[in-house]
Amino acid sequence: MRILCDYLTVLGLLEKADDHYQLTPEASAFLSKRSPAYLGTTAQFLLLPGLKNNFDDLTEAIRRGGVAPSGNTVADENPIWVEFARAMAPMMMPAAFAIADLVASSSTGSLRVLDLAAGHGMFGVTIAQKSPSAEIVAVDWGPVLTVAQENARLAGVQDRYRTLPGDAFKVDFGTGYDVALVTNFLHHFDQATCTKFLQKVNHALKPDGRVVVLELVPNPDRVSPPIPAGFSLTMLAGTPSGQAYTLSELRQQLEDAGFTDISAHPLPTPQTIVMARKAAAR
Amino acid sequence: MRILCDYLTVLGLLEKADDHYQLTPEASAFLSKRSPAYLGTTAQFLLLPGLKNNFDDLTEAIRRGGVAPSGNTVADENPIWVEFARAMAPMMMPAAFAIADLVASSSTGSLRVLDLAAGHGMFGVTIAQKSPSAEIVAVDWGPVLTVAQENARLAGVQDRYRTLPGDAFKVDFGTGYDVALVTNFLHHFDQATCTKFLQKVNHALKPDGRVVVLELVPNPDRVSPPIPAGFSLTMLAGTPSGQAYTLSELRQQLEDAGFTDISAHPLPTPQTIVMARKAAAR
Repeated sequence: MRILCDYLTVLGLLEKADDHYQLTPEASAFLSKRSPAYLGTTAQFLLLPGLKNNFDDLTEAIRRGGVAPSGNTVADENPIWVEFARAMAPMMMPAAFAIADLVASSSTGSLRVLDLAAGHGMFGVTIAQKSPSAEIVAVDWGPVLTVAQENARLAGVQDRYRTLPGDAFKVDFGTGYDVALVTNFLHHFDQATCTKFLQKVNHALKPDGRVVVLELVPNPDRVSPPIPAGFSLTMLAGTPSGQAYTLSELRQQLEDAGFTDISAHPLPTPQTIVMARKAAAR
Repeated sequence: MRILCDYLTVLGLLEKADDHYQLTPEASAFLSKRSPAYLGTTAQFLLLPGLKNNFDDLTEAIRRGGVAPSGNTVADENPIWVEFARAMAPMMMPAAFAIADLVASSSTGSLRVLDLAAGHGMFGVTIAQKSPSAEIVAVDWGPVLTVAQENARLAGVQDRYRTLPGDAFKVDFGTGYDVALVTNFLHHFDQATCTKFLQKVNHALKPDGRVVVLELVPNPDRVSPPIPAGFSLTMLAGTPSGQAYTLSELRQQLEDAGFTDISAHPLPTPQTIVMARKAAAR
């Protein structure tokens, strides 16, 4: 136990004075189960053998330009996304609050929200908590949506929360949405697929409806900041043709899909929100 | 390939300018096979599944205070030590040069050197290269010694290089050595075992003979510097009762084993050389 605590001190998660150890402020905020900002569950997802093992064959992934089909994390109904929904919600809360604020401050009247690949559901749920008139429709694979529904219940917004199970590329979204959320999604796919998906989203929106994209966005040099830039390798190792897109690439995808008024909102986390408005029909 | 190169740039192993990449000075010195200081082979040892897998069950190792017998890296004839001998020599060269200098500067006349758990053999071989009158006797398991002998041949010192195969705790070293090398060894064992082993070494030395210990030595706080302090966890995960010892613990082991005039020589690497002289019989 002494060796473990010394190691955690070397890592900066504990402070040692004489032979006593205590949590550092960061560990106390994010790694204590008593803290509302507890992030420890994220390790359950990020260290899944199905994700770690992709790096055992990184050379092959680089030769191919993407992962072999057996390692594809975005394959249909991959059960890792249920684990994702359970484990990753806490790490997404700062972005969820920022999105809810942005959506609320730019909305007037009705607020029908389409939450795509909703996962844990917290992006939509947080909007519903912030905006009492908001109604959420969450799309994801069925088993994942049970986690989102549970979170909607816990947040007391279940009356304004509907689910639409299925593959987001195939399911009929319906139309008339004010806002569509495309969070942590585009980096799994190549640019043409992203554009096509955003076109589908565009069709589901009302005139002047908005899309909210959440991504890890590297600078144009693609080697900074470290987390968004490094994330491309994770996608190379785990998807057939995904990567972290620069802002100009995302802008191109959005414009090609019929969006305009594109704005970027970097967060204090390594994430960036990109908002855009449905362009008038040409 | 672009994503890989960007990632290596994030890590500081490449520099990127426009769309061109080049090695950083550090990568050029240590990660190019054209460099005499190439360290890439070390990954072959440090990433062996037999070593990495010990961390899959770290909780159990911490509960036990050491690894389960099946994961014990110091078990008899573990083939990982042949891999160690082949892979880790380059990383040990700075310490090997420092030891050869220390031994040469404090020697007069004959130089019979006992190189214990010799591995790649480079500690003894480097002494033989530096001191033309030195004769080396290398102890290790038989398959490991074939690597050491090959290195002695390559260095042109094979005429002054003998091997003594067997378990260093059991094999008869003989007597009359001027110097004994105990490098990267003590951290695998508990203090009582270290002291007993050093007693055996003491008996093999001439009067006034010296022992040279090479270790990762944390400060008395056991949480700095990061590499020696953190190394204790590696030993907890991979040995039944090993750890990185502080200087005062090593001093105690050496005094209890009959050594005196103990001096510490920190290296520019994270390693420390500890030298001591055989005390006169009491």
